[in-house]
Amino acid sequence: MSSSAWSDTVLQLLRRMNNFYSPGSRRAKCFRFEIDGAHVGWIPPRVAPLLTRYPDVFTPPDGGAVSLVPRLESCEERSEAVDAVLRALRQEGSLSCLKGWRDENYSVMPKFSDPPLMWMERAATSLFGVKRYGVHINGYTVSDSGEVSMWLARRSPSKQTYPGLLDNLAAGGLAAGVSIKHTLIKECQEEACIPAAIAEKALPVSTVSYTYEEEEGIFAESQFVFDVKLPRDFKPRIGDGEVQDFYLLPIDEVKELLATDDFKPNCAMVVLDFLIRHSFIEPDTERFYQEFVEGLHQTL
Amino acid sequence: MSSSAWSDTVLQLLRRMNNFYSPGSRRAKCFRFEIDGAHVGWIPPRVAPLLTRYPDVFTPPDGGAVSLVPRLESCEERSEAVDAVLRALRQEGSLSCLKGWRDENYSVMPKFSDPPLMWMERAATSLFGVKRYGVHINGYTVSDSGEVSMWLARRSPSKQTYPGLLDNLAAGGLAAGVSIKHTLIKECQEEACIPAAIAEKALPVSTVSYTYEEEEGIFAESQFVFDVKLPRDFKPRIGDGEVQDFYLLPIDEVKELLATDDFKPNCAMVVLDFLIRHSFIEPDTERFYQEFVEGLHQTL
Repeated sequence: MSSSAWSDTVLQLLRRMNNFYSPGSRRAKCFRFEIDGAHVGWIPPRVAPLLTRYPDVFTPPDGGAVSLVPRLESCEERSEAVDAVLRALRQEGSLSCLKGWRDENYSVMPKFSDPPLMWMERAATSLFGVKRYGVHINGYTVSDSGEVSMWLARRSPSKQTYPGLLDNLAAGGLAAGVSIKHTLIKECQEEACIPAAIAEKALPVSTVSYTYEEEEGIFAESQFVFDVKLPRDFKPRIGDGEVQDFYLLPIDEVKELLATDDFKPNCAMVVLDFLIRHSFIEPDTERFYQEFVEGLHQTL
Repeated sequence: MSSSAWSDTVLQLLRRMNNFYSPGSRRAKCFRFEIDGAHVGWIPPRVAPLLTRYPDVFTPPDGGAVSLVPRLESCEERSEAVDAVLRALRQEGSLSCLKGWRDENYSVMPKFSDPPLMWMERAATSLFGVKRYGVHINGYTVSDSGEVSMWLARRSPSKQTYPGLLDNLAAGGLAAGVSIKHTLIKECQEEACIPAAIAEKALPVSTVSYTYEEEEGIFAESQFVFDVKLPRDFKPRIGDGEVQDFYLLPIDEVKELLATDDFKPNCAMVVLDFLIRHSFIEPDTERFYQEFVEGLHQTL
């Protein structure tokens, strides 16, 4: 791929992953999802009428917002009431994303630094556009002559989302009440059989944030990014079956791949962030350098 | 300073440096500055009537925008026409920022990757809220035991802006038509007597972007950030008199300082970005980690 085609493709990827901010998006038609006056997400127009059928839980749309009724005062009350609605909707079968029910609770809060206002089943978060947090780990090696290679995983063909695509060494969502470092060590162990003694050496270096809309919902996500420099004789191994293979590739090859459809899009963003931080992309030769950095850190 | 007070102070700094995005800002009252239909800046309400006194150059406000008249078709024509207006306004003396006229032209374009639509005197850019680009260099050393120290400059008491405050090792604005790397090498040489052989080893690692408003205008800026690991026996020296002193400080001390009024605010942001990329801040212990990364990369 020519350098200019590569740049255009990567810019398009970043635009797609931030399409909720673009002028043509459904954003103006979405309802703000509010809890106790705090804005915590965006409800697509198609979803709002399904929720407001439950007036004991959700208020009717008011001033562009759908809220939890004030009666639900505690984190527990809100979580349980919404969970009951979601289980009823899942029963109906009209919302396809609920078929991927995971029994995994995510915290819902306006900002990561705020205490959670409720918990919500992971599979339902895109119906409310609530922000999801996760951890992604770049694993790399450096040869004696300084050449950098990166470990990539290929997702199992049976994964619910993005089957068969390239992924970072390990990654996972941040469940309610679990620390970032703990999530990192657990995912490294489960997905790639990386012992805790190695995973603990991973360094926090960045976050990558984006918001995109698809037919079935709004995906607002921030990933905490870690780099781990691996011993050259270390090989990740298939763990829990979420991965079908691992590859150690020269960084130039990884750079080429990230502009292809073979990469899970948010993982390609995490690699792009790595390439920028490790100076594999230069601002005098990459005309979209500033747009790339921007596109990796979009937030509403 | 307690860790929690430090975090609050840094978050406040980022909010101040992005106050043009905050709900209480003048943004809603500003006029978009457009050239040939492209949005390139924001004109404060106080400035617009001064410009539209020159109907040969600026259109009357229309739909919230002030534009250059269509007659000005080329980059040269636009630059010369606006320059003549700015020189007349400078003569009048009503706009204090024009007293700092530098005879230094900045490119004006919607995005960094676009060709320039015109050039504008650096001192006038805040009257139009056009984006300014610059280069900032973090200089650091690593001891045998791995301890990181950072070189900071103290600005000369005679500097036009932020006299006497702490700054990065070297920094400078990107003049029209000059490459980023060239600007970096020139500023390293002029401000800190760093030979090109060392400056050339600086690595591009990030950009830091923000938009703030002050009484006199709107400052939309993106800084290309470089790190240079310096030999431990190397000492920067005062060059062109923009700096009064250099200090090599342990990274913990630099971290403390960046939350004080002793730091030029955008330089504190560049240091914060360094602290994040080099893992001196961890997301499990710094509750504002994600907000920090967000605040370093804000763009409209």
